[in-house]
Parts: sequence; structure tokens; C-alpha cells
Amino acid sequence: MSDDLFSALKKRLRLFADERDWDQFHSPKNLSMALIAEAAELIEHFQWLTEEESQTLSTEKQAEVEAELADILVYLVRIADKLDVDLLAAVDKKMAINEQKYPIEKARGNAKKYTEYNE
Amino acid sequence: MSDDLFSALKKRLRLFADERDWDQFHSPKNLSMALIAEAAELIEHFQWLTEEESQTLSTEKQAEVEAELADILVYLVRIADKLDVDLLAAVDKKMAINEQKYPIEKARGNAKKYTEYNE
Amino acid sequence: MSDDLFSALKKRLRLFADERDWDQFHSPKNLSMALIAEAAELIEHFQWLTEEESQTLSTEKQAEVEAELADILVYLVRIADKLDVDLLAAVDKKMAINEQKYPIEKARGNAKKYTEYNE
Amino acid sequence: MSDDLFSALKKRLRLFADERDWDQFHSPKNLSMALIAEAAELIEHFQWLTEEESQTLSTEKQAEVEAELADILVYLVRIADKLDVDLLAAVDKKMAINEQKYPIEKARGNAKKYTEYNE
Repeated sequence: MSDDLFSALKKRLRLFADERDWDQFHSPKNLSMALIAEAAELIEHFQWLTEEESQTLSTEKQAEVEAELADILVYLVRIADKLDVDLLAAVDKKMAINEQKYPIEKARGNAKKYTEYNE
Repeated sequence: MSDDLFSALKKRLRLFADERDWDQFHSPKNLSMALIAEAAELIEHFQWLTEEESQTLSTEKQAEVEAELADILVYLVRIADKLDVDLLAAVDKKMAINEQKYPIEKARGNAKKYTEYNE
Repeated sequence: MSDDLFSALKKRLRLFADERDWDQFHSPKNLSMALIAEAAELIEHFQWLTEEESQTLSTEKQAEVEAELADILVYLVRIADKLDVDLLAAVDKKMAINEQKYPIEKARGNAKKYTEYNE
Repeated sequence: MSDDLFSALKKRLRLFADERDWDQFHSPKNLSMALIAEAAELIEHFQWLTEEESQTLSTEKQAEVEAELADILVYLVRIADKLDVDLLAAVDKKMAINEQKYPIEKARGNAKKYTEYNE
């Protein structure tokens, strides 16, 4: 798997910020705040829905949710750029840890324990 | 730009959840909560740092931050899978909107206004 | 209703911070990050539970949730202190707005619309 | 210190929800989502400000921040009501723990370590 896609996204967002002289505002600290604010806009779409309702959204809500997911990805990639993080390598590393932490056999037998060991 | 990468990530995470019988917990509502919880773990790394300090992390903190970014990406891709969202298309759409909303000339001349029109 | 309680809490938390020389870290910006991090710890307790399960917690989880609620209140009062906000007056003001915005008759007849107008 | 104030607030918010038939939406799970969404609206006011700027807000921004703080308090009290939590007792308990965890002498000498032990 190559991270050309993330490299391209990083460049695109860097250019967007540079052209507007916005790089000065984009410290990792500030970007982490912007990211969580977008994550909260996603939360707002789901907070009064049942879990089931959250799976089948109206066309309008679906479009809004897609825009929130885009915003989250934008800030995520922007932070990764500022801190020089290879997002794909980071996911690979994390998935390897998770596979060790939650072996299939043990996890299957403990689906009900999910709530505890995923806190 | 192709979204083969996101397709591959979606499949990988779907398999991981299926093997553990965890799909039952992964409603978009629940996943949005898990995502914001990870975004908050990122916030915790930066909350008492100055903006400047947040740009040059210790090796240990950098590794922890990379793991948080991976966690956020994992839940983001998982939600996109559950709601059948093409993340790259969503970003393209959002960037087009942002380019219209914040034209370069107007944005440059108003760097100080950034705080207002990005709320 | 008097806000003597909040005044007392403000003083207590101010003293706690001053004694430890921590006031230097407590800008409203930083405190808003600490507050949302605590709100996310609350989220983590509920993210894989059903709504029903979230209403009847085990003794252990109940104690943990109580501690998170306390943490949120602590940072809320601390921000209110730093920005000289009278929390009770703020709630009174907001409740008056909400009463106008969501008149009883209209709200009752539209319980199903709750998800839309509370986003 | 008495918690009559919180008891009064609980009753007031309970009545407000009951009159509108909104209690059905107010599971602790859902309320924790609403609370973090309000905490994020607070974050949005501060995300592009410097720490210093966050301490001296314009009259308009100050009013908006006060409304966000009220919203957070409202959902906090509502969750406490649903889970039968005595917020003041919870704060007392947490403060006692914090006083033990961060003894004055050790904390003062380690102001720079604040970022580590408050993660």
C-alpha cells in the first residue's frame, strides 16, 4: 500500500493554506482543536438518533455527514503534514498492535466484554 | 486521484471487526463517539503545551501522537464504510466549496479575520 | 437562586491552582481543551453501550462516571472564573431563550422533529 | 456547602424536558453526546486565538462564550439527574483525590512537569 494519496492531499492542503496566509494559525495544537470541533459536528448529526436510525440517513443528512467526514480528514491530514507523520505507516503500526491486543479467538468469545476492553 | 487506498483500508478494517464479531457495535452513532474520544486523546497531548511546543514534540510524544492520528483515521474510515461514503470524493467536493468560500485575494487581505470566518 | 455555591467553587479551585503554581497554564483556550478531554472520557463510558444500558450502570462504572462529571464541572467553573462569568445568570438567560425557541405546544406536537431542531 | 442549587436546576431542567415530551431522547448516552457537542462549540471560539487573546474577549464573543458555558452546565446537570449523581459530593471527592495526587510541594517544584502528569 502506498501513501501517495496522503502525500498528494498534504500538498494540496498546504498550498490552500499558504495561498491564504493561513499557515500561521495551523499549529498542531490549534489544528487538534479544529479537528475535534469537526468531530463534534458529526456527533450532532447522530446524538438524538437511535443506532439504527444512524445507519440509514436521509439524502440531505447523508450529504451533511459526508461534508463533516471530509472536514475531519482535512484536519487530520493537515496535522500529519505539520508533524511529518506517515499516516499509512501509523495505521499499519496501530493495526499490528490491535491484532496482538485483541486476538480473534479471545475477542469472539468475549463480544460482550467489548464495552470494557475498548474503553 | 484514486481512492483504492481507502477501499483497501475499509476492507481491512471490516475484516478486523468481522473476525472479532464486533460489527454489531459499529453503528455510525457509536463510531462517531469512538472517533471523538480519539480526537480528545490527541487534544490531551497538546492542551498544556504552547502552540510552539506543539510543533516540536519529544520522540516519545511524537510516537503517541502518531498512534492517536492512526486511531482517528481508523474510525473515520470505518464510519465512511458503514455509510458508504467515498472519502476522496467528499474531500474534493469540500475543497471546491472552500475555494469558493475563501477566495485567495479576500483571504490574504483578511488574515486577521480568520478567527471569525472559520468559527 | 443565589450563585454563592459557584462563587465558593471558583475560590476553591483558584486556590488549588495558585498553590501549585498552575495558574500559568489555565488560559481559557487551554481550559476549553481540558474540558472537552473530560467530556470525551464520559463519552468513552457510553460509546459501546445501548441507550438503555447507559441508564443503569454497574457500581464501578457509576463511580467512574461520577468522577468524570466532577472533572467537567471543575473545568467549567474554572473557565467561568477566568472569564468572569456568572454561570447561574448565564443559565437563566439561556433557559429564557430556549423557552421562547421551543414553545411547549409546538415542541410536544413535534417530538419527532426533535432531531432536526436540536442539531 | 449545600447542593440545593443543583437540586433546583435538576428540577427545572426536568420540567422543561417533560413539558416538551423530550425525556425520551435524554438517555445518558445521548446527553453525553450533546454535552461534548457544546464543549466543541466552546473550543471553536478559542481555536484560532492565542492563549492571551482567549483571556480578553470582545463583548460579542464573551456573550457567545457565556451561552456555551450555560449549555454545557445544562447538559451536565441533566446527566447528573438521570444518573442520580450528587455533583457537589462528586466534586468534593475528586478534589480530595487531586489534593493527594498533586501535593503542593511536589507540584510547585515541578510546574514544568505539569504537561506530563496532567495528561
